[in-house]
Amino acid sequence: MIRSLVNGIPRDQVSILDRGLQFGDGLFETLAVVDNKVCLWERHMRRLQAGCNRLGIPAPDLPLLHQEAMQLVMDERQAALKIVITRGASERGYKPAAGVSPARVFSLFSWDGPCFDPVRISVSNRRLGHNPDLAGIKHLNRLEQVLARAECEENVHDALMLDMQGHVIEGIMSNLFLQNGQQVFTPLLNRCGVEGVIRKLVLDVAKNQDTEIISGDFTLDDVLQSDALYLTNALGGIRFVSEISGYDWKPKTSFHPVLAEAATSVFS
Amino acid sequence: MIRSLVNGIPRDQVSILDRGLQFGDGLFETLAVVDNKVCLWERHMRRLQAGCNRLGIPAPDLPLLHQEAMQLVMDERQAALKIVITRGASERGYKPAAGVSPARVFSLFSWDGPCFDPVRISVSNRRLGHNPDLAGIKHLNRLEQVLARAECEENVHDALMLDMQGHVIEGIMSNLFLQNGQQVFTPLLNRCGVEGVIRKLVLDVAKNQDTEIISGDFTLDDVLQSDALYLTNALGGIRFVSEISGYDWKPKTSFHPVLAEAATSVFS
Repeated sequence: MIRSLVNGIPRDQVSILDRGLQFGDGLFETLAVVDNKVCLWERHMRRLQAGCNRLGIPAPDLPLLHQEAMQLVMDERQAALKIVITRGASERGYKPAAGVSPARVFSLFSWDGPCFDPVRISVSNRRLGHNPDLAGIKHLNRLEQVLARAECEENVHDALMLDMQGHVIEGIMSNLFLQNGQQVFTPLLNRCGVEGVIRKLVLDVAKNQDTEIISGDFTLDDVLQSDALYLTNALGGIRFVSEISGYDWKPKTSFHPVLAEAATSVFS
Repeated sequence: MIRSLVNGIPRDQVSILDRGLQFGDGLFETLAVVDNKVCLWERHMRRLQAGCNRLGIPAPDLPLLHQEAMQLVMDERQAALKIVITRGASERGYKPAAGVSPARVFSLFSWDGPCFDPVRISVSNRRLGHNPDLAGIKHLNRLEQVLARAECEENVHDALMLDMQGHVIEGIMSNLFLQNGQQVFTPLLNRCGVEGVIRKLVLDVAKNQDTEIISGDFTLDDVLQSDALYLTNALGGIRFVSEISGYDWKPKTSFHPVLAEAATSVFS
């Protein structure tokens, strides 16, 4: 870690009463810093606000968050900025104390910077549980991802995760797009999964180009019959999948124009 | 909070890199302290070890945990002791750093002590998601309980939670037993829910009495047709349910001998 701020103060500790630690009661964002600029700040803040709204955490003060992000990034040309917002510190018990105030935890990490190489992926044996109340938001309850990552092959970029019903949902740390011919698809995230900021960027670029990206339920067979696959992530960018470990699959086409166009905006 | 220990040192802060905060990557136990004694210590430690095993967290050093618990409790006659074990502090990313060392967070809270009064409960509108990989253990991913508690009526002891398929699983903070005639039942916890220490105590007492308690899937209708209901929790003890808010249900029998016998061991 390069440096950190907790509630605006240069510190690297939080209260043991913080509900982020006690219950995973909060949200996070991971942002790319490229050429001294925090990428897609507004998009990350929109998702963070939506997540706070879903969890009933008071909406953060966005100008304050921006000021703290700038203060932390300083003259760092390239880095990964992580922002954790929790419901705050509160005594024991699921019910928060009256007047609990959200905590802001900013941390800056060294990062190798954007990479555009195609990626080799695998398929996780762990399954995502369903919970519509928590689906889509980037909350701090991430044991499913921790366990999947712990078992993941070393030499893959990410691993696809299926849900209990066999639908392919996302990567451990990224969203998935499937391409067949010129048609692009992406898994529905209304029962599990995280609505990534880059996923939303791709959907918005498609809309601007009058191209429909179809959200739906897809099986591993659908994945293996795709002409191309893409994984999206705020640090990883938009990555063309070249290989799926353990499966006889190869891409049959090159970068789709919508994803190529979106890729130009990820780190700008 | 009365006082706390972090990795054996009197402190009330943890690193912001602790994976408990970052991902809810850990477990907890809440223990009753009555007459200067930590209740059911061995049972809590067995569950904690089982949870660590499930999450791939190195088993804690039990004599060390006991020594720290004693150090924290000191001359407190009556209190609630919370023990959080996390995978430890590690840089950004789901994969823990090599050699990460688990963190021990002990905190002691004031507590009113045992209560044996019958309780009024309600039924939560929130549903528990299924994930067999996480079912049963008392991990730190507790947003489902936080959201259920936030909506819970003020004047009830706890609220029953159903899963996505309409099975009654547990209370927000307790396990459930159903009684029909002299037969006792308890929900299966292989897809969601927490295997409470008091639940296990009740099952063991039943076994010692050659009484079978049947684990199975039960609907809200099954609950409403029960002669008696009990909620179990390490601080709450074994509580007879007297009323379900919003439902025309009343107990039709008195304390079952197995639950009455188990109740004598909860705080001893």
